[in-house]
Amino acid sequence: MPPTAPSPMLVFQTLQAHQHTSALRAGIELKLFSAIAAGARTPEALAPICNASPKGLRVLADFLTTTGFLTKDAAGYALTPDSQLFLVESSPAYMGGMANFLFHPFMEEGLRSVTGAVVKGGTTLPAEGSVSDDNPVWVDFAKGMAPIMYPAAGAIAELTAGSGPLKVLDIAAGHGLFGVTIAQKNPAAHIHALDWKNVLAVAHQNAARAGVADRWHAIEGSAFTADPGADFDLVLVTNFIHHFDVPTNVALFQRLRATMKPGATLAILEMAVNDDRISPPGPALFAMTMLTSTAHGDAYSRAEIASMCTAAGLHSPTHHTVPNTDQTITLAVN
Amino acid sequence: MPPTAPSPMLVFQTLQAHQHTSALRAGIELKLFSAIAAGARTPEALAPICNASPKGLRVLADFLTTTGFLTKDAAGYALTPDSQLFLVESSPAYMGGMANFLFHPFMEEGLRSVTGAVVKGGTTLPAEGSVSDDNPVWVDFAKGMAPIMYPAAGAIAELTAGSGPLKVLDIAAGHGLFGVTIAQKNPAAHIHALDWKNVLAVAHQNAARAGVADRWHAIEGSAFTADPGADFDLVLVTNFIHHFDVPTNVALFQRLRATMKPGATLAILEMAVNDDRISPPGPALFAMTMLTSTAHGDAYSRAEIASMCTAAGLHSPTHHTVPNTDQTITLAVN
Repeated sequence: MPPTAPSPMLVFQTLQAHQHTSALRAGIELKLFSAIAAGARTPEALAPICNASPKGLRVLADFLTTTGFLTKDAAGYALTPDSQLFLVESSPAYMGGMANFLFHPFMEEGLRSVTGAVVKGGTTLPAEGSVSDDNPVWVDFAKGMAPIMYPAAGAIAELTAGSGPLKVLDIAAGHGLFGVTIAQKNPAAHIHALDWKNVLAVAHQNAARAGVADRWHAIEGSAFTADPGADFDLVLVTNFIHHFDVPTNVALFQRLRATMKPGATLAILEMAVNDDRISPPGPALFAMTMLTSTAHGDAYSRAEIASMCTAAGLHSPTHHTVPNTDQTITLAVN
Repeated sequence: MPPTAPSPMLVFQTLQAHQHTSALRAGIELKLFSAIAAGARTPEALAPICNASPKGLRVLADFLTTTGFLTKDAAGYALTPDSQLFLVESSPAYMGGMANFLFHPFMEEGLRSVTGAVVKGGTTLPAEGSVSDDNPVWVDFAKGMAPIMYPAAGAIAELTAGSGPLKVLDIAAGHGLFGVTIAQKNPAAHIHALDWKNVLAVAHQNAARAGVADRWHAIEGSAFTADPGADFDLVLVTNFIHHFDVPTNVALFQRLRATMKPGATLAILEMAVNDDRISPPGPALFAMTMLTSTAHGDAYSRAEIASMCTAAGLHSPTHHTVPNTDQTITLAVN
């Protein structure tokens, strides 16, 4: 409801927007969507399944109806196409696990002090914020965030997998989905995935599930210090450089160049902002997540990403939008 | 951006909606809007005024531009009509004080446990939640929430102030604005405002500022136990009954009837939901605030409000919408 004349509604609604997050989180935690999918449609029918009170479920389900996650008629509540696909536990596209990452106490703590982060110019969390060594938040990330990365993983594989032997380095692999998808597409590809040990366990599971574990190799450690080997045809740096400042990323790219064959490709996945830094909305708002959870991270524009590549000695950067997302793939050549 | 095909965007955006609240809160706390009003338009110019880092201010101002609170061009950031009116401290309609109420640690604590409140069917806060005796949260309420109550106060006065002698009881007066506005409109009106002592101090200030302190009288105590006197022509019950269940409200109305002259009016102000409980959005979502902050409160429909009136022996309830708001005034006759 954008107001035409000055109206207090935008201020008032924004001051209460956190309720939307809390309510969806409660729906996920109480498995409300799965219960409705199983056929319970009224607060009274849902109460024993969700182990909650009929009144509380009525208020929660009305809230989630008002905000577009459910529908309601005389027979009770029903799922929307979105909630059917993304919020029912048995769905392969279930996003409920994301809540474990987004609401990790560590992430929540960072968000609670936006004012402090603005004052400081970076996270008020200890040390390097979310990117500290072995932070268990990345296990939750690896487990929870994979569902929204399928389109990007497919797009990167489409651009880079090719058909012959391909030695791939997957930096900060997380859930491992990007490398795994390339291995699925190209039976001659070998993936070397680098991440902290606890995170690699999640990626390894995903590689095994995808049937590519025999061509998937783990390298434990930090992207900044581990020795990943050499002669790579393709290096993946996905959802990573936004955690760091420009000089750190240039140094990283230089380090990665040393592992690449001549003519090899560096593939970067980012939520790239436009040059105005206020569009598209997703990447523009994402800069705040980086401010509150990292010491020096940011949302970068395509021009800035290209410039980091060329500063590191890579050339011919090209940008590719992942269809139906706010994500940009940048390819640069060694 | 409501998606047409299933899209993870609504889930993802809602899981992050709390950032919108945190960012606006930071803008208010750092007095960003006042600084822009004073002519500082770039992160570098804003930094010394807001005592914050240029980078942090850039990320914050971009976020607030993306979410509609600022505009941005080559010369820097500028205020929107909304932020000029509601977010600059010197504006008479400044809403920044609302943040002190909405983000009171007590209110935040309640919201943090939506899941718990749904399980229990009411607040997980101690005792009666926000409506406990002398809770200092109501001082913040009285100071902060007045700005958005002017339209309702004007509408109630329009309906009830009349022109002759009028003895008014203002139950749970809060900021006192409803009684004060009647006293301003009708020079023969006397207002007897009932609330806890710490809150009445705020209302008394507002009465003095409005020049009606000589016809404004304080009654310290709880609406449920204090003796407010008798022979009232008009009793105001504004933004109050949503804190309680139906039997409690019926008992309150019966108690208030005993203070009213025959033919006197009870005036109730509420965010009334439609019978479907999922519209209009404001009142529908407000039910969640009551679930998380009170033991037995709720958002009521016009039919439910009328029914509580008649159950208490009042008659002829009529409903009146406050223009350009989600608020409903119900008048019932003794």
